[in-house]
Amino acid sequence: MSAEFSVTRPCRLRDVPHWDIETDVIVVGFGAAGACAAIEAAQASAAVTLLELASGSGGTSALSGGEIYLGGDGGTPAQRQAGFVDDTEDLYRYLLMAGGPDADQDKVRLYAEGSRTHHDWLVEQGLVYKNTYLPERMMEPETDDCLIWSGSEEAWPFSASAKPCPRGHTPQWVGWGGGRMLMDVLAARVVKLGVDVRYDSRVLALIADEADAVHGVVARIDGRLHFARARKGVVLCAGGFAMNRDMVRRHAPGLLRANEPIGSPGDDGSGILMGMSVGGAAIHMDQAFVSLPFYAPESLIKGVFVNERGQRFINEDCYHGRIGHHIMQQLGDRIYLLVDSATYQPPAEFTRIGIAAAGETWEEVEHDLGLPQGTLSATVSVYNRHAAEGADPLFHKAAKWLQPLVEPPFVALDCRVDYAFYPHFTLGGLDTLPTGQVLTEKRTPVRGLYAAGRTACGLPRWGGGYSSGMSLADATFFGRQAGRHVAGLDIS
Amino acid sequence: MSAEFSVTRPCRLRDVPHWDIETDVIVVGFGAAGACAAIEAAQASAAVTLLELASGSGGTSALSGGEIYLGGDGGTPAQRQAGFVDDTEDLYRYLLMAGGPDADQDKVRLYAEGSRTHHDWLVEQGLVYKNTYLPERMMEPETDDCLIWSGSEEAWPFSASAKPCPRGHTPQWVGWGGGRMLMDVLAARVVKLGVDVRYDSRVLALIADEADAVHGVVARIDGRLHFARARKGVVLCAGGFAMNRDMVRRHAPGLLRANEPIGSPGDDGSGILMGMSVGGAAIHMDQAFVSLPFYAPESLIKGVFVNERGQRFINEDCYHGRIGHHIMQQLGDRIYLLVDSATYQPPAEFTRIGIAAAGETWEEVEHDLGLPQGTLSATVSVYNRHAAEGADPLFHKAAKWLQPLVEPPFVALDCRVDYAFYPHFTLGGLDTLPTGQVLTEKRTPVRGLYAAGRTACGLPRWGGGYSSGMSLADATFFGRQAGRHVAGLDIS
Repeated sequence: MSAEFSVTRPCRLRDVPHWDIETDVIVVGFGAAGACAAIEAAQASAAVTLLELASGSGGTSALSGGEIYLGGDGGTPAQRQAGFVDDTEDLYRYLLMAGGPDADQDKVRLYAEGSRTHHDWLVEQGLVYKNTYLPERMMEPETDDCLIWSGSEEAWPFSASAKPCPRGHTPQWVGWGGGRMLMDVLAARVVKLGVDVRYDSRVLALIADEADAVHGVVARIDGRLHFARARKGVVLCAGGFAMNRDMVRRHAPGLLRANEPIGSPGDDGSGILMGMSVGGAAIHMDQAFVSLPFYAPESLIKGVFVNERGQRFINEDCYHGRIGHHIMQQLGDRIYLLVDSATYQPPAEFTRIGIAAAGETWEEVEHDLGLPQGTLSATVSVYNRHAAEGADPLFHKAAKWLQPLVEPPFVALDCRVDYAFYPHFTLGGLDTLPTGQVLTEKRTPVRGLYAAGRTACGLPRWGGGYSSGMSLADATFFGRQAGRHVAGLDIS
Repeated sequence: MSAEFSVTRPCRLRDVPHWDIETDVIVVGFGAAGACAAIEAAQASAAVTLLELASGSGGTSALSGGEIYLGGDGGTPAQRQAGFVDDTEDLYRYLLMAGGPDADQDKVRLYAEGSRTHHDWLVEQGLVYKNTYLPERMMEPETDDCLIWSGSEEAWPFSASAKPCPRGHTPQWVGWGGGRMLMDVLAARVVKLGVDVRYDSRVLALIADEADAVHGVVARIDGRLHFARARKGVVLCAGGFAMNRDMVRRHAPGLLRANEPIGSPGDDGSGILMGMSVGGAAIHMDQAFVSLPFYAPESLIKGVFVNERGQRFINEDCYHGRIGHHIMQQLGDRIYLLVDSATYQPPAEFTRIGIAAAGETWEEVEHDLGLPQGTLSATVSVYNRHAAEGADPLFHKAAKWLQPLVEPPFVALDCRVDYAFYPHFTLGGLDTLPTGQVLTEKRTPVRGLYAAGRTACGLPRWGGGYSSGMSLADATFFGRQAGRHVAGLDIS
């Protein structure tokens, strides 16, 4: 019977034969956004049913490092303890730049002003931060430490507009994968608040009336079809579409070059498609986080990225996701990271970055890579000359990473797009208000429908500005707003 | 009363109070796509009503040069007369590359095989081609000549995969603007075939049943609301969305950098939005034609484009729209075209390309532009060394355009993105079958709904592959397919 339902077309209210479930709020997806929406809605006394495709909580959030981008209002405890004062306006300006040419000013403003208290809320839920600071540049801590530089804050052009501050907060968890801890904490709260959680539940379609106002969902729960009514609204927190390669092809085909989609099987775009089925607008569908996580070791940041013409294309001290974004815009798949013996450290094995060429002179490396004479060598020569003076007039790399590459042997690390590790996920999704209300192309709300996390197009919406922790920040914070608003409270 | 209707939400069939118009086929928009759809449907004995927003025919097609990308099957009369043999497979391969990472193989195949007879059909409608050939590179003929090189056929990487052939066919019309002639010819046929043409008609919404099958449109015609029934189907040929800057911001924000949208007021995205309102999928919404039409004079093609770091980024013999596409991907707004006294010719005035710097040496130009020593000068030095040998190992510019830039004075032409002429229009639109049937995200047809021209995502769907005449080729050819299919005939 479920074959007749489709995420691309709502089931009409009048076609609902009976209600199997009646509740105030239905949340679709038990990742970080869904958990936070459920917590807030339940705390506002709404009856909440949470439907999750998998057999347990977590979604893609649980696969992450659990890092959350937090700050402002003078600083979080971790920031203050490390000696940083993080002004709300600096956080605002950074997030606005990070949002790219169509940054959502309203969301950025709300988040900048509410981030500090959002931190406290997370702690109240049970999240534990050690509040220690690691000054080194890294993907995420391998220890249980807390605060790291997780974006391009210290890198041009961001550093020129907003005072840099580290804002990546990782829970107290040894090793990578703190996202599991984050989700365990949030899931425990969800359960404690009496949310009706249904696992092994695939939402097949929204239920909407003739005016496309949303009244519930059709779902297959434990193999049986259910018509579930949401008196107050449905909150879609069903992830992005990185795992739906057909959808990637039609909306973000540039991503097909990168070989490692990050996500859980639920990131099939069904949340976005359901929103569109009742008139929701999907925006910035071409944008994605694409990374080459080449540091740590951070000494590699002192290297120089060149494309297959031996040209630099970015300041190498940017966040690895901004570098990945620019790598994807180069003509040709060959990308090299040039280092000398003073800066070389073996890249992490998982990055699949090997050595393409090595030589006693840069001319030799240039030749061995098959590049015309005077290309790569001229690039390094200009770089070295200015680096010796602590300057990078071309890309404004910060002085602390500038070190002439003059100690032989010289090495070109092989970062080719079709071989090295380029993880990616999608940033396009449903246009929403800061309340989480899904908007049509005319920017009018679809009644009864909310979205958060990567089902929505949130703070992160431009590959060139992504920073670690931004997606979880957006998912948790705007998941909360959606939960409060759908339950009838004012937001934030 | 019309305030209650919206292009983003269909009027439900049951809410239609009466029919003001009853016909077989409704075509929305009287540009080239709409005209061709109407002609074919009428010839197949369907009763056709054509609704046009403006007070006359033409749309954006009439603002164009009227150039159509045609060839294959050994060649059109103009191609043969000029001594070219254009193989269908070469046309196929070129169009496939031009479609980018998600080229529509089915449409490309149908067009490559049908392009030659499409030419004959256009001539049968009354279009006159002088069938003369102009070998020089230009935007479009200023004379009434016919055949020009209108794409990147002779440029790498296209030239490496498909035997080059000129395929831009311009009607016999003196001066630019042959699109008006094309539209006059097509409009005369439309009228002759008895199509019911209604000008000053704004379509407000589709009319659809509960299953989102389309049955007609709501339109304001001469100021009065009409419910118009289409027994066989509605064909949306309402243009793109270049003129809807809000929509551009949310779907193609990179385009906001370019300052000259090309289109008529009707290019407001309403056709795309109506298709989406009944479940149609809009794809590649970020893609656009963006050009810097810097030739003629064609000697400027012998120059070298550099970005604000003095780096080359493209083979300069590409079609100007491919060059524009790559200019938009450079970091920074400053773009220069470097020429020497042997290659300099004044750029056309409308391009707003002035002189940024001039000097007796390239080092002097480099210095005057404020570029670090050894950047621009090294770029030119490598270029010159290889150009002297007829090679361009970095970007594979063809030998005929390679000439060392060694005759002082040396000039940097100022092509900055925020000042020079960068015309653009959108390429994203509704996903359709070669029949013109609008597809959902699941690629199932929406019953009763067709789209063609820039309301659809057609042959041109990637800025890096656009060629002049490709949009009109797509609009006229697939407009015809839609007209035939909606009238009940097999296509092509």
